[in-house]
Amino acid sequence: MDRTVGLLGGGQLGQMLCEAANPLGVKVVILDAENSPAKQVNAKASHITGSFTDPEKIRELARQCDILTVEIEHVDTHVLEEIAEEGIEIQSADGKTTRKKVQVQPNWKTLRTIQDKFLQKEHLAKHGVETAVSQAVESDKSGLERVGKELGFPFMLKARKDAYDGRGNFPVMSAQDIPDALEALKGRGLYAEKWASFKMELAVMVVKTSDNTLAYPAVETIHQDSICKLVYCPPRGISTHLQEKAQDLARKAVGSMWGNGVFGVELFVMENDTIILNEIAPRPHNSGHYTIEACPTMSQYKSQLLSILDIMPSFPGNKIPSLSPATVMLNILGGASKTSHNALVQSAVATPSAALHMYGKESKPARKIGHITLVAQTMAEAEKAMNPMIALADEMRMERLPAAQRIAAKATSMAKSASKAELQPLVAVTMGSDSDLPVLKPGLALLETLGVPYFVTITSAHRTPARMTDFAANAAANGFKVIIAAAGGAAHLPGMIAASTALPVIGVPVKGSTLDGMDSLLSIVQMPRGVPVATVAINNSINAALLAARILGSYDVELRQKLERYAKDMESEVLGKAEKLEGAGWEKY
Amino acid sequence: MDRTVGLLGGGQLGQMLCEAANPLGVKVVILDAENSPAKQVNAKASHITGSFTDPEKIRELARQCDILTVEIEHVDTHVLEEIAEEGIEIQSADGKTTRKKVQVQPNWKTLRTIQDKFLQKEHLAKHGVETAVSQAVESDKSGLERVGKELGFPFMLKARKDAYDGRGNFPVMSAQDIPDALEALKGRGLYAEKWASFKMELAVMVVKTSDNTLAYPAVETIHQDSICKLVYCPPRGISTHLQEKAQDLARKAVGSMWGNGVFGVELFVMENDTIILNEIAPRPHNSGHYTIEACPTMSQYKSQLLSILDIMPSFPGNKIPSLSPATVMLNILGGASKTSHNALVQSAVATPSAALHMYGKESKPARKIGHITLVAQTMAEAEKAMNPMIALADEMRMERLPAAQRIAAKATSMAKSASKAELQPLVAVTMGSDSDLPVLKPGLALLETLGVPYFVTITSAHRTPARMTDFAANAAANGFKVIIAAAGGAAHLPGMIAASTALPVIGVPVKGSTLDGMDSLLSIVQMPRGVPVATVAINNSINAALLAARILGSYDVELRQKLERYAKDMESEVLGKAEKLEGAGWEKY
Repeated sequence: MDRTVGLLGGGQLGQMLCEAANPLGVKVVILDAENSPAKQVNAKASHITGSFTDPEKIRELARQCDILTVEIEHVDTHVLEEIAEEGIEIQSADGKTTRKKVQVQPNWKTLRTIQDKFLQKEHLAKHGVETAVSQAVESDKSGLERVGKELGFPFMLKARKDAYDGRGNFPVMSAQDIPDALEALKGRGLYAEKWASFKMELAVMVVKTSDNTLAYPAVETIHQDSICKLVYCPPRGISTHLQEKAQDLARKAVGSMWGNGVFGVELFVMENDTIILNEIAPRPHNSGHYTIEACPTMSQYKSQLLSILDIMPSFPGNKIPSLSPATVMLNILGGASKTSHNALVQSAVATPSAALHMYGKESKPARKIGHITLVAQTMAEAEKAMNPMIALADEMRMERLPAAQRIAAKATSMAKSASKAELQPLVAVTMGSDSDLPVLKPGLALLETLGVPYFVTITSAHRTPARMTDFAANAAANGFKVIIAAAGGAAHLPGMIAASTALPVIGVPVKGSTLDGMDSLLSIVQMPRGVPVATVAINNSINAALLAARILGSYDVELRQKLERYAKDMESEVLGKAEKLEGAGWEKY
Repeated sequence: MDRTVGLLGGGQLGQMLCEAANPLGVKVVILDAENSPAKQVNAKASHITGSFTDPEKIRELARQCDILTVEIEHVDTHVLEEIAEEGIEIQSADGKTTRKKVQVQPNWKTLRTIQDKFLQKEHLAKHGVETAVSQAVESDKSGLERVGKELGFPFMLKARKDAYDGRGNFPVMSAQDIPDALEALKGRGLYAEKWASFKMELAVMVVKTSDNTLAYPAVETIHQDSICKLVYCPPRGISTHLQEKAQDLARKAVGSMWGNGVFGVELFVMENDTIILNEIAPRPHNSGHYTIEACPTMSQYKSQLLSILDIMPSFPGNKIPSLSPATVMLNILGGASKTSHNALVQSAVATPSAALHMYGKESKPARKIGHITLVAQTMAEAEKAMNPMIALADEMRMERLPAAQRIAAKATSMAKSASKAELQPLVAVTMGSDSDLPVLKPGLALLETLGVPYFVTITSAHRTPARMTDFAANAAANGFKVIIAAAGGAAHLPGMIAASTALPVIGVPVKGSTLDGMDSLLSIVQMPRGVPVATVAINNSINAALLAARILGSYDVELRQKLERYAKDMESEVLGKAEKLEGAGWEKY
C-alpha cells in the first residue's frame, strides 16, 4: 500500500481510479492536462502537467513512481518498454545517477498488442479465442473489392490504431461504399472484419493477477451512434449458462495477455448462441462503471489497483459477485447546449436508487460527461426506474443529432421501445396439459395482481419428457426463482421437474373425473426422500401463487408487505361477513 | 447543484462528504488546517486554511459560499447566527459593500441546542422524546452528594459541552468517586444523568428535509473504551418491531430540530424493551459510515448534501433501505506504534467483501484513522468474515492499553467471544409436540449437513395457541426466511402458522397410530384459498429440509450448488446400486 502508482491519463477512468485509491491510502500521481478530471479529486500528490503521449513527461512520471499504469491504451509503448526493461535514471541525493526499477502494469507487450486491433485479433486467434474473421487489407479500391469478394458484403473496415467509440470504423455495405470508406479512414493502417450478425452485445470485466484471472458478471451493453449507451447487469433474456460462457471466453482471452490489471472485454452473442470476442481494452471500461455501486467492496477500479499492486484477493470460482440483484447504467453524453443535460442530472438526483457520477468535464455534444447507475431488487424494477432517464437521454440525442439522422433515429427508437417492456419472469408456471389451465387461472390472476412477473407453458411428463427435463434443468439459469407445476391423475410432472432442478417446486394437484383428486394429491405429495415438492391443496392454484409470492417475499420486503396487506384484506372481508351475520341473524344472512 | 457548500471542519466526515459531493458536481469549500483529510480528496476549490472555531475565518468561508454546513457541532454558533440572520458583507466589483444571503444548515439553533448536552436533553424532553433522566448540578461535593441521593448511585456526571468519544463523561459509582469526578471535569459546565441500564445500544441516521424526516435502518453499535468500535446492520437479535420503534423515536427527535441535514441519533434499548434516546449529532456520524457500501446510491453523506440543498428525494414509508442484507463496520483506531494497524489494513484488503477507508490521518494511539465495512448476504456470513479483523483490532488494543487495564480487558473479551459464535438462523423448525421430534430429526441433520442455520422449538396449536401466534407473527422480524412445521392427527399447526405470517411455511404430516398419516396429510395440505402450506410427504422431514434449502437457494447460489451436488450424489448412489444389481443379478443382490 505504500507504493506510488503513476497514471498515464487523467480522464474519468483515472478519476474513478483515484476515488478508489484515496480510501485505500494508495498514492496516485497523474500525468495529464491541468485540472483534468482525475486531478480534481486527488490532492494527495503533486501531479505532472503534460500529455500522456510525451516520452519525456512519461519518464518524469516514472521517476516519482513504483508502478506505471494507464487509463487509455493509446500511449507510447516504446517509452514504457524502455522504462520497464531498463529502469529509469534518477539522481540520488549525492548527485550520482542511478537506475530505478519501475513496473509497467499491464505489461507494455499487452498494450502494444491491444492498441493495434489487427495484432490483437491475430494474437487472440493464435490463443484459440473465437473472434470475428479479420484480414489485413491493402488500402486501395481493388484491395477492398477483393476483401468484399472473400468476406462478403457488408464488411467492417477498421483502423488498426487509435480507434474508440466507433471512430475508426466504417461499415462497407457494398462495393459502392469503398471510395467513401477509403476517404474516411485515409492515412491510417486498416484491416477488414467479416460482418458479425449478433443478437446481443455483452461485456465482461476481467482482472488479471500474476497467476489467475477473475471475472465480473457478464453485462448486456447497448450501443447507439457507436457509443456505449446502456449497460444491464445481468443481461436480459439470456441464460446464465451463456453468461458463464462469456465469462469463460473473456477470462481465456485476458489470460493470454502479459502483466496484471483490469481488462474490459467486449463480446457478441451470435444468432446461434455462440459467443465471439469483439475487442479488449487493457484498463477499466465503460461497461464496468456499474461495479462501483453493484460491487461496493470491489469495483473495477479497486481491482485495477489491487491487481497491479499484486495484492488482489481470490474469489470462489474466480467470479466477483454483484451485491445488487439488478443494475442499469446509463451514460450521460453532452447535449446540443452546455445545459442540455440538466434535466437528466436532476432526474438522477431525484431518483433514490440512482447514483450520479459527473466527471467535471466541459460539456460538448456527444462527449461522455457523466453516467448514472441504478440498483434494484429486480430488473423489472430497475428498468421501470431508469426508463424515464433513458427517455430524457433520448430527447437530448434528438436535439443533438442533425435533422437527417433524426428521423431515422426516431423510427428505430420507437420500434425498440415497443418490443421491450418485457420483465424477467421469476415464477415459471407449467402444467401437464392445457386442460389444467382453468385450475391455474385464479393463481395466474393473483400473480398479476401482486405484480410478480411469471411465464406460463405446458410440459407433459409423459408426452414431452425431454422438453420437461430441459425446461426444469435450465429454469435456474433462465432466472426463475420458483416453479409451479400442476397435474392430475398419475401426476408425475411436479415431482419429475423437482428431480431436474434445485429450485423450489410447488405442486398443484388437479382434480380429475374420478377419485376426487386424491390420485393427483398423493402422486404429488408422496415424493421419496431427496426430492421435495411443496404440495398445496387440490385445485388450489391461489395458494400455489401465494406460496410462490411468499418464497420471493422472503427476500423482497416490498412483496412481503403486499402479502401482509393481502392477509389484512382477507381478514377484513371475513370480519365484515361476521358483522353482517351477527347483525342480520343467520336466517336472513 | 450549482450552489457552493462551505464546510466547517475537514476531518474524515468532511472527507467522505467530499467523496459524495465530487461525483454529484457539488463544489465544497473547506475551512480547516492545511492538508486535512477532506482537502486531500477535493482539488475542485481553493480552500481556506484556519480553524473552524475562528469567527473571521468562518466569515471568509461564508463569502465564498451559498450554504454553510458542519462536520462537527463544536463550532461558534454566534457567528453562524449572525451570518444566517444578517447575511455576510461582500465587496461587489464596483467596490461597494453589500450583504449576501448565506444559509446555515442545519440551523444554528439546532447546533446551539445540541452542542450543550443538557439543553439538548431539556429540548427533547419538552418534545416528548424519552431520554435518560438528567438534572443540572452544582459542581461541588455537597451538590453531587445530593444528586446521588436523588438519582441513586451509580450516576453519570457529564460535561455539557465539547464532549465526544467518552471524553467529558465520568461514571460516579458511589459517593467516594465524587472528588475524582470533580477533578476530572474541573472547570466545565456539568449535569448528571441517571444510570441507564441498557441491553443494547442502537443508532439511527435521520435525514431532515424542509417538510419531512427520513430514517436509515437502525444499527447496533458496540462501544469499547467509550469509542464506537463496531456497527451491525441490522442489529442482532432484536425484532424488526423494536428496530422500527427506534427509527420512529429518532425521527421524532430530529423532527423537533430546526433546518435541514443529516443527524446521527444514539439510543438505548432498555431491559424491558423500551427505547430511550441517548444523544444526537447534527451531522454525519460514525454509525452511518456503513451506508457508503450498504446504500450505494444514497449514503449518509449524499443525504447531507441533498438535504441541505433541499433536493432530497422521498422514500416509501420515509425509510431509506439498505441494499446489503447484512453489514458490519469496524473502526480502525491507531495502535501503540505508527505501523500497528498494518496487519489489520492488509487483512481488510485481502477480504473481498470488505471496503477499506483510510482517512489519510497520522496514526496516534486510539485515534480514529480509518474504518472497514463488510457486506454479506447474511449476518452469519458477515460476522464470520469480520471476526478475524475484530481479533486483529483487539490485539492492537491490547498493545495500546496500559498493562493494568489490559488484564481486565482480556477477561471481558474472552467472555464475549465465548457467548458469540451464534449465527442468525434462517429456518425456524417447530412441532406440535416433542413426540414429533423423531420424525424431524433426519431433516434437522440434513440442515446441519447443508450448513443452513436453523432454530428448533415446540409450539402447539391446541395447547399453546398464543405462543404459536406470537412465534409466527414475529418470525419474519426475527430474521427467519422459511418455517418448517410438523404435526400429526388433526394437524392444525402448519396452517395456523401460515395464517399468522407471510413467510413460506412447509408442513410435514406426521403419521399417528391410526389412519396411516392420512389425517395429518389432509389437515395440512387442504388449506383454504389464501393461506398456503407447502406440504411434503408423510413423515418426510428430509424433503421439508431440502425444500427449505431450495427456497433459500433461490437467492443463494452457493447453497444451490450444494443442492446440485446433493442431487448428483443421490444419482451416483442409485447408479452404483443399478450397476451392482446388473452385475450380481437380482437373486444375489
